[in-house]
Amino acid sequence: MRILFLGDIVGKPGMAAIKSELPRIRDQHRLDLVIANAENAADGSGLTVRQFDKLVRGGVDAITMGDHVYRKREIYERLESDTRIVKPANFPDVAPGKTWTTVTAGDGTEVAVFSLLGRVYTRPVDCPFAAADRVLEELPADVRVRIVDIHAEATSEKQLLGRYLDGRVSAVLGTHTHVPTADATVFPGGTGFQCDVGMSGPYESVIGRNIERVLKTAVTFEPVHYHVATDDVRLCGALLDVDPATGKCQRIERFEHRVEA
Amino acid sequence: MRILFLGDIVGKPGMAAIKSELPRIRDQHRLDLVIANAENAADGSGLTVRQFDKLVRGGVDAITMGDHVYRKREIYERLESDTRIVKPANFPDVAPGKTWTTVTAGDGTEVAVFSLLGRVYTRPVDCPFAAADRVLEELPADVRVRIVDIHAEATSEKQLLGRYLDGRVSAVLGTHTHVPTADATVFPGGTGFQCDVGMSGPYESVIGRNIERVLKTAVTFEPVHYHVATDDVRLCGALLDVDPATGKCQRIERFEHRVEA
Amino acid sequence: MRILFLGDIVGKPGMAAIKSELPRIRDQHRLDLVIANAENAADGSGLTVRQFDKLVRGGVDAITMGDHVYRKREIYERLESDTRIVKPANFPDVAPGKTWTTVTAGDGTEVAVFSLLGRVYTRPVDCPFAAADRVLEELPADVRVRIVDIHAEATSEKQLLGRYLDGRVSAVLGTHTHVPTADATVFPGGTGFQCDVGMSGPYESVIGRNIERVLKTAVTFEPVHYHVATDDVRLCGALLDVDPATGKCQRIERFEHRVEA
Amino acid sequence: MRILFLGDIVGKPGMAAIKSELPRIRDQHRLDLVIANAENAADGSGLTVRQFDKLVRGGVDAITMGDHVYRKREIYERLESDTRIVKPANFPDVAPGKTWTTVTAGDGTEVAVFSLLGRVYTRPVDCPFAAADRVLEELPADVRVRIVDIHAEATSEKQLLGRYLDGRVSAVLGTHTHVPTADATVFPGGTGFQCDVGMSGPYESVIGRNIERVLKTAVTFEPVHYHVATDDVRLCGALLDVDPATGKCQRIERFEHRVEA
Ligand SMILES: [Fe+2]
Ligand SMILES: [Fe+2]
Ligand SMILES: [Fe+2]
Ligand SMILES: [Fe+2]
Ligand SMILES: [Fe+2]
Ligand SMILES: [Fe+2]
Ligand SMILES: [Fe+2]
Ligand SMILES: [Fe+2]
Repeated sequence: MRILFLGDIVGKPGMAAIKSELPRIRDQHRLDLVIANAENAADGSGLTVRQFDKLVRGGVDAITMGDHVYRKREIYERLESDTRIVKPANFPDVAPGKTWTTVTAGDGTEVAVFSLLGRVYTRPVDCPFAAADRVLEELPADVRVRIVDIHAEATSEKQLLGRYLDGRVSAVLGTHTHVPTADATVFPGGTGFQCDVGMSGPYESVIGRNIERVLKTAVTFEPVHYHVATDDVRLCGALLDVDPATGKCQRIERFEHRVEA
Repeated sequence: MRILFLGDIVGKPGMAAIKSELPRIRDQHRLDLVIANAENAADGSGLTVRQFDKLVRGGVDAITMGDHVYRKREIYERLESDTRIVKPANFPDVAPGKTWTTVTAGDGTEVAVFSLLGRVYTRPVDCPFAAADRVLEELPADVRVRIVDIHAEATSEKQLLGRYLDGRVSAVLGTHTHVPTADATVFPGGTGFQCDVGMSGPYESVIGRNIERVLKTAVTFEPVHYHVATDDVRLCGALLDVDPATGKCQRIERFEHRVEA
Repeated sequence: MRILFLGDIVGKPGMAAIKSELPRIRDQHRLDLVIANAENAADGSGLTVRQFDKLVRGGVDAITMGDHVYRKREIYERLESDTRIVKPANFPDVAPGKTWTTVTAGDGTEVAVFSLLGRVYTRPVDCPFAAADRVLEELPADVRVRIVDIHAEATSEKQLLGRYLDGRVSAVLGTHTHVPTADATVFPGGTGFQCDVGMSGPYESVIGRNIERVLKTAVTFEPVHYHVATDDVRLCGALLDVDPATGKCQRIERFEHRVEA
Repeated sequence: MRILFLGDIVGKPGMAAIKSELPRIRDQHRLDLVIANAENAADGSGLTVRQFDKLVRGGVDAITMGDHVYRKREIYERLESDTRIVKPANFPDVAPGKTWTTVTAGDGTEVAVFSLLGRVYTRPVDCPFAAADRVLEELPADVRVRIVDIHAEATSEKQLLGRYLDGRVSAVLGTHTHVPTADATVFPGGTGFQCDVGMSGPYESVIGRNIERVLKTAVTFEPVHYHVATDDVRLCGALLDVDPATGKCQRIERFEHRVEA
């Protein structure tokens, strides 16, 4: 089966690209499932209910989030009750949302989806290794296809989680840095890995934001609002071929689709 | 003219690959100049005098460093007196080493080389933007080809420095994360950019180190020595075509050379 | 001469305490000068023009700030043109404000005031040691009394700056952690030192904020606005006796004034 | 009953002071129990078995540790098997050591002891709030006297833990910054609190280390070994009166004992 995992959808440009491009991409690549990280949809930070609904209508089957998961309070309800979105699995029990979910792919395969937040250079969270172990224990044993979003800063931490989960999940795919890495590979145990799949948004930018705005603050220390940028919109992610019977990743390649201006 | 910039050389495997592969690579790609970051040469941290000499003999024309620059005290003398190695330009004045240098390429072009350390998530250092301005003011005006190593963790900071220096230098090339990014591009002003060129060392590893060792500490908190790994050695970097008259980058592409086992 | 240095004024409770208490305190302790850090005056973050004017009218002779200095854009004008307020001296040249100032104390002594931001665990800034050296070089040589606010997180960095400046300034006084330390002392060279003088605001709180609000986010990860607390208001600082002829600190003691409810 | 809690014992000077001073202090203050944090005993980092034995012989009834707990591998065995030492309770299950212990005080009261590591600005660890809840659930209900070491950097995090545990434990006492705070108090629920009790070691220093050595690296970036300092040795801590029947803290005061040179 073929799965597309898209990195952090950023702002209106990212949302618009999903709407205009994803249907064609689904057909062209004969996708059975689309998963997307949507933590930056709402003007760069968080996800609104309206955006959630648009993504689902636009062909996204499951949504992961990141450090910005709770920026929009209105999404808490979807996090609690809708099976198409998860919170990071190493967040507190009392934090809104589910730690994992399963969705049915186009070919009928049940696919488990969960995400982990890294804790090197990011906000303090509980151990992602232990959280992954807990989720894998809870997952129905017959759900063999398992896709993990590792939302983290440090390359070492992402590689460590990929190695830790090698052979136990279908893929460990990085998000958060908003820059795609050139290291997509299948680890010895059959787990697809890419350190970061890159963002889905405007690349004529500083990680999705207006260049001049971010530069202004960096140089003068005057805080300004970082508008989401507008140009060179791309959908970036990873394209996976997974054996539905074993959950093994047969092939992974970096995915990049440039939106015509 | 053609320049190869290689990312962090890691340990013995990285050093051995330079020795065995670089002569052939120089010929094959008709390189006029080779620059390499060597901050991880000495068992993963620092650079010895003997290694410095080996790199120079092996065909490396200029060496940059990073946060590990002062790990081996013996290299201070080279940092002070040898024109083929620089310290990060935003380090203190009193810190050992020069903030920039120029070297003569195979085609006779003078090429300026300097490096900056990022300060987001890394050790506290002085403003890299201001340091770059100072170096550019000091550089002889007729040295048009200028290669900058931005040794940093955060993608945002690397992109910002690339944009800040766009049109003023030939290339801004990232190091430190040890994972190559898939974003090599020439910015509108004519500056080549890649967020990280990746390390030159063993890729069957966690950023160059033995997987089991790093995983052990991550999971159990017991500190252990992180041995340099051994397998899947690659030389990674960026390959640049630069106009020697204007210093503009005409073409940049990601470079990856896998060493036969 | 006698100088009172007050730590971070927090919100309305801190502002009200200055107004109601400072006149009496000035008399009672026969103060020649009052300096206050006001970075948290505006609802916990930043300083408004109206608050600046109130502080000056209320008896504050000079104002230092911290990481929140630029939160209120309206204060930039005062930072640029008014001699009673300074920005951190290790902020960029282009950042709004002066790096040092002098004010005339009640006994006629000219007193220099400047502040430094630490960079261990805080936002990246330029070297505070080098910035202090620059300020001391610029200061008129006959201004012997010099008060330094070290606004920093790490105790090691504050102690280091105190030791570095020992014998060159009258006092190095810590702010930012909002908790007074019990280590007020005069260093061998004659510089008064206290690692943190504590905040001027509500102590029935978490560093000035409403306990329940901060606890809520810490435990559930749901972001909420951290209201400034209201109860157990204290003005905290350091009380210094300084020799106006030599600038040596003769005596330092921790200052704490509890406001009657 | 009366309990003395001593902060981070630093190096030989700290160890020597325990040996020479503690017996007299025990008598003079009629102590029923002495608890000490010993994470910096072994030349500033870690604890050896020999030192553990010396502390116990010298009158320390229970030992807590901090981020340096595993620096000396030889102590793992004591951490696993000896009831007088605990690891931080929010460390991984698989990490060596127990999360809590009980010791019998001189008056016959059973006293529970545990420690938590903060995670703001420190190494990533699991939630200290949840870990405290787990320990309190495991503790025998009839053990009413409970002393908690919160080993953390940020004042906000320490205050939060104190407030979170107010009414459920006898005292929450801070360590790690090595500077005593002037905020010892009993919270409304009957829990004694002090943000940091200070270190037990040489105060003519930078947090226990030789001033010149630390200053050298701060200014020049050249790494050097930070020797433990030698002068102005003090034992610092908190002195508690606790009701053995209810576990309520009746009185807390800052403790500081200066060793005669
Ligand atoms: Fe993120
Ligand atoms: Fe993101
Ligand atoms: Fe590095
Ligand atoms: Fe490196
Ligand atoms: Fe602050
Ligand atoms: Fe503050
Ligand atoms: Fe510590
Ligand atoms: Fe310590």
